[in-house]
Amino acid sequence: MKTRIGILGYGNLGKGVECAVKEANDMELVAVFTRRDPKNVTILTENVPVCHIDEVADWKDKIDVMILCGGSATDLPVQTPQFASMFNVIDSFDTHARIPEHFAAVDKAAKEAGKVAVISVGWDPGMFSLNRVYANAILPDGKDYTFWGKGVSQGHSDAIRRIKGVKNAKQYTIPVESALERVRSGENPELTTREKHERECFVVLEEGADAATVEKEIKEMPNYFSDYNTTVHFITEEELEKNHSGMAHGGFVIRSGKTGMNKEHNHIIEYSLKLDSNPEFTTSVLIAYARAAKRLYDEGQKGCKTVLDIAPAYLTEMSDEDLRAHLL
Amino acid sequence: MKTRIGILGYGNLGKGVECAVKEANDMELVAVFTRRDPKNVTILTENVPVCHIDEVADWKDKIDVMILCGGSATDLPVQTPQFASMFNVIDSFDTHARIPEHFAAVDKAAKEAGKVAVISVGWDPGMFSLNRVYANAILPDGKDYTFWGKGVSQGHSDAIRRIKGVKNAKQYTIPVESALERVRSGENPELTTREKHERECFVVLEEGADAATVEKEIKEMPNYFSDYNTTVHFITEEELEKNHSGMAHGGFVIRSGKTGMNKEHNHIIEYSLKLDSNPEFTTSVLIAYARAAKRLYDEGQKGCKTVLDIAPAYLTEMSDEDLRAHLL
Repeated sequence: MKTRIGILGYGNLGKGVECAVKEANDMELVAVFTRRDPKNVTILTENVPVCHIDEVADWKDKIDVMILCGGSATDLPVQTPQFASMFNVIDSFDTHARIPEHFAAVDKAAKEAGKVAVISVGWDPGMFSLNRVYANAILPDGKDYTFWGKGVSQGHSDAIRRIKGVKNAKQYTIPVESALERVRSGENPELTTREKHERECFVVLEEGADAATVEKEIKEMPNYFSDYNTTVHFITEEELEKNHSGMAHGGFVIRSGKTGMNKEHNHIIEYSLKLDSNPEFTTSVLIAYARAAKRLYDEGQKGCKTVLDIAPAYLTEMSDEDLRAHLL
Repeated sequence: MKTRIGILGYGNLGKGVECAVKEANDMELVAVFTRRDPKNVTILTENVPVCHIDEVADWKDKIDVMILCGGSATDLPVQTPQFASMFNVIDSFDTHARIPEHFAAVDKAAKEAGKVAVISVGWDPGMFSLNRVYANAILPDGKDYTFWGKGVSQGHSDAIRRIKGVKNAKQYTIPVESALERVRSGENPELTTREKHERECFVVLEEGADAATVEKEIKEMPNYFSDYNTTVHFITEEELEKNHSGMAHGGFVIRSGKTGMNKEHNHIIEYSLKLDSNPEFTTSVLIAYARAAKRLYDEGQKGCKTVLDIAPAYLTEMSDEDLRAHLL
């Protein structure tokens, strides 16, 4: 019997889950839930109902894993505990600083309901976290480096759009190549914020706005831009639409560490992602952990887990025997 | 209480384990076992006894995890099942094709004894396997590439040394940079053996041997060299000793895969290692899994596991709370 998947929230992530379920031979999409009027939501899969979020309780016994595709700022802190009381759930909660409190709330709800929840699934947190933990466990005497990009940062793009005179904007976070090379050389450098990433902004001005004023305001914005080398390009709305609508992203997790009786040997562990579509890669990870959640639930486990608590073999359709014979 | 570690076999791996245990605050080395006369074996750690392998049964209750540092060809197929009947054990069995039968033998012994065994721990099999499994689970529609090197291949060096007229030799396996670039571009190329790796040989001739004959014999050797672009350098024994005694190694695991309703997006997941010391990195992985083996045993688990069956959180000294707060 196939694992029955529900999608809650039909934005970029919801659509990505829909694509990823299609690739999984052991899963089927059974319903999509939305806060909008379901009549106005058209999905890509035929014969799957779109339901209003208020009807979700009716699906309690018809869905094995509900994938929560809301945002981390306001949706998931409420939704994940709420729906973990009815379903096994997966979310991509990515506010790193608030993970401990989110974990506690979800764990309580899932344990009371006898369900499995997996939070903070995706690539960072997610695959990058895994790689930090493996690399730290192997090389305890070492140093971690995480670089993001090249890719659009939603938060930084939003910050630019809030500036008076800005009609629209996209901001790319770009890792500094020379910093990556220093890390890869085993030098174990101390890198400042400015040395690790640069920021490139593509800005559409409102009619009559002054470019020099906007550029100055961007470059001097504390936290967001003032600690970085920032480049600002002014372009038309058409150019923005045509050249900067992609959702590519990526990054690097590197650990450099020493071994040997006299620390005479250095080792570099590097994990990197180069993604054409940030949301579709994220949801591909979500689907792999949905498979794991179902298996853990079937084993009688309950409560909140993260990617750190789940063995790799749970993520794949392959049997343990096939994994040992072909991928080990 | 610290996890009590035993080392069985004191070659390069045994010495690497000794270094790695020193780095672990939660472990202590309690004994080293050897087939040699213990009087002739001097270890780097003070106040730790070196014992003959025949005495190992006396240590049944004094060692939590025994790390087996023998070779995969003849030692481990016998030793791992044998010692899994007395201890929790870790090995680095790396004959990929024979893993299923090794697993079966070790699983039987460990289950009967109520012990935990973890086999095929290291980097390939080991960390490379993990990365193949994670990447396959996330991108089911894709293609795997594993490249090894630059590093010395023991098997290929041995093959050269068996040639008449060769006094000594080292062979480096080198990934072809242009092949790596094609894979990273998302082209998903079909690569021949020759296109993926090249081989570089450093050979010391016996007095009077003919260089041209030896070079021809190396380059035409089936399986080992004939399918590769091979370069042969003739050097002196002193040069070999001075410039080619290192144990550096490394490699790359790359998966390139597609997502999207029309497969319109490509993603590249890359994991790479650049290691100054192949044995010390391998043993750093062994020690992390020794920690996991002790925890699994304390939880009441038994039988044979691989790196695919163990969640990342088991490998580190950090608590689950700290992992979530700092590395997730």
